[in-house]
Amino acid sequence: MHKPPVLGILGGGQLARMLALAAAPLGVKCLVVDEHADACAGHVAPLVVAGWSEHPRLLELAGQVDAVTFDFENVEAGLARALADRVAVWPPPFALAVSQDRVTEKTLFRECGIMTAEFAAVGTRAELDAAVATIGTPAILKTRRFGYDGKGQFRLKAPADADAAWQALGAQAIPDGLILESFVPFVREVSVLAVRGRDGEFRTWPLSQNSHTNGVLTMSLAPAPDIAALQPRADALARALAERLEYVGVLALELFVTAGGDLLGNEMAPRVHNSGHWTIEGAHTSQFENHVRAVLGMPLGDTGVRGPSAMFNWLGELPPMEPVLQTVDAHWHDYGKQARPGRKVGHATLCAPDGATLATRVDTVAKALGREVQAAPALRALRSG
Amino acid sequence: MHKPPVLGILGGGQLARMLALAAAPLGVKCLVVDEHADACAGHVAPLVVAGWSEHPRLLELAGQVDAVTFDFENVEAGLARALADRVAVWPPPFALAVSQDRVTEKTLFRECGIMTAEFAAVGTRAELDAAVATIGTPAILKTRRFGYDGKGQFRLKAPADADAAWQALGAQAIPDGLILESFVPFVREVSVLAVRGRDGEFRTWPLSQNSHTNGVLTMSLAPAPDIAALQPRADALARALAERLEYVGVLALELFVTAGGDLLGNEMAPRVHNSGHWTIEGAHTSQFENHVRAVLGMPLGDTGVRGPSAMFNWLGELPPMEPVLQTVDAHWHDYGKQARPGRKVGHATLCAPDGATLATRVDTVAKALGREVQAAPALRALRSG
Repeated sequence: MHKPPVLGILGGGQLARMLALAAAPLGVKCLVVDEHADACAGHVAPLVVAGWSEHPRLLELAGQVDAVTFDFENVEAGLARALADRVAVWPPPFALAVSQDRVTEKTLFRECGIMTAEFAAVGTRAELDAAVATIGTPAILKTRRFGYDGKGQFRLKAPADADAAWQALGAQAIPDGLILESFVPFVREVSVLAVRGRDGEFRTWPLSQNSHTNGVLTMSLAPAPDIAALQPRADALARALAERLEYVGVLALELFVTAGGDLLGNEMAPRVHNSGHWTIEGAHTSQFENHVRAVLGMPLGDTGVRGPSAMFNWLGELPPMEPVLQTVDAHWHDYGKQARPGRKVGHATLCAPDGATLATRVDTVAKALGREVQAAPALRALRSG
Repeated sequence: MHKPPVLGILGGGQLARMLALAAAPLGVKCLVVDEHADACAGHVAPLVVAGWSEHPRLLELAGQVDAVTFDFENVEAGLARALADRVAVWPPPFALAVSQDRVTEKTLFRECGIMTAEFAAVGTRAELDAAVATIGTPAILKTRRFGYDGKGQFRLKAPADADAAWQALGAQAIPDGLILESFVPFVREVSVLAVRGRDGEFRTWPLSQNSHTNGVLTMSLAPAPDIAALQPRADALARALAERLEYVGVLALELFVTAGGDLLGNEMAPRVHNSGHWTIEGAHTSQFENHVRAVLGMPLGDTGVRGPSAMFNWLGELPPMEPVLQTVDAHWHDYGKQARPGRKVGHATLCAPDGATLATRVDTVAKALGREVQAAPALRALRSG
């Protein structure tokens, strides 16, 4: 009797959806939980609608699944731990907790030998002034918790901006805390996607080079150009972090590369990550498949690439799909979500046998869609690489 | 308001399952219909359980979908036509009807310029004797309808075998009819996978070379070796057939290659086909994705390959998955079905940048799984190519 493993996924967005699509060929059934009955992962896997505060209902799920994982990191730590008492929960609740607090996260980065921007925890206006005096400007005031995609941030160009910064974010100092970080003049941002198995096996994909618009990822290029020296250093940092966290599953570590070639840890995501979507077609094993394999104790798959890939993120609403469908080795991903300003509603990955061909394809699609600005950083990198 | 197209799929087996997995990234919702509540496509898409004779219920579905397609060809022709009166039905009911009757099928092949074995319709014992006299032996007596994967066939080595053949299949002469076909001494069997769009756009994937065990596909290799001269001839035959049928969607045409280099039509499948499963990872666009694109009127995707691929079919029960998961660029496909003798329960596709590397991977996996016999024809072809 064939008894398929069942994977519970808390959160039913596009990450859960792509996890479920990768899980099916492995013979893994997914059970997705979300607050919303129209969660897009529910189109491809059974969906349980439950609020995140309904702990008794959520804990019941532990009896129906072989492992639990997440498509977002802001899972209440108490819930994650209570689930972990009943069933395998990966990534470990400690990793979720670390990623939920920028101060804890950067402190842990430093413990693992990952350099970071200067930072200071800020709980009061007086602490903000002290932090500005120590760290200097330019600097960025951020909420410690629940910030993502550039939300909950204020940039201080000079010490005099402290008033405006406090005005913008001071109200969040009491419940969640703030952090002041020195501004890092980086030349590029890369992310290392890593996967660690239950047995400690560790693999990384080639680095992605990312560009953002208003703090949100708009384009990734992988492998990032000119990474022969960078990749082993980034891998070692991700490995140190994953081992310190006793991590299982896919982990993303965002790194700033400075003009001097230093690598500074920006943030980690204890989950599959937007900058790794290109792995679906661009790598021998996708981040989604390897995450499923890792959390269920299957052997990890090879993380080598087929060639270079570039990913366009679609924010707010989908552009016309035809220019992508008509391009060789270009792949459309509609998440099945309603359009909403700034919302991640889909992506497209363009692959090619070499960088020059990829640049031509990216350029053609960008022009057809009026996305020249979005594609410009990737095109510059491809043409310089 | 984002209104996703909805595709109705009659039949909820592994073909429907892989269609649904390919449809999701295109933003297409699937609605699968099957007689069985445990149909494996129901794990990845909403499933309506209805018997094939429940025409009123099935016709109601027409109002809920933008197009209807099939994962099997033995759909009752009357049902397909009734659906086609209400909604777009692709492939056209005529193509289903043709493929349901080996005599009609081979007659149409000849009309399209596709050579076939000698054949004769057989309805009575006297007609069998007359057919044997005309066609000679060796020959194969087959049911005209509902035969697949080598079922409903009897091989006559000599005219004296007519008694035994009639004993085996004569009872089926009245309802469904029989066909006697001369035995074709082919040197290899290939299939051409083709897709035709609503606008008549036509594309083929590189030919697959197939090997069978007891009449069931056990291995495909693509591109088949040494096809520079063969491919354009096979493409022209598939195109003539698709145009004659006013076909929309993916069509498979199985061809025998004789020692003299002739191509003889064996049979067609008006649907995605087992010999095209390698396209999921081996081609820029899979047969499943292009079928969805075609039937919904989207632009067709490029059918070029990334490199050579070999597919192992898993019949009856799945072998251990680890040797496949541990191989670079090897892809596991568990259909989520219960084991049952002879049942198609999964497949694995191995890809590589070149034939020599592919041969090494196929050999390694075959040895690890004790599948040397299954892999032998593909390995011979790879090593001779």
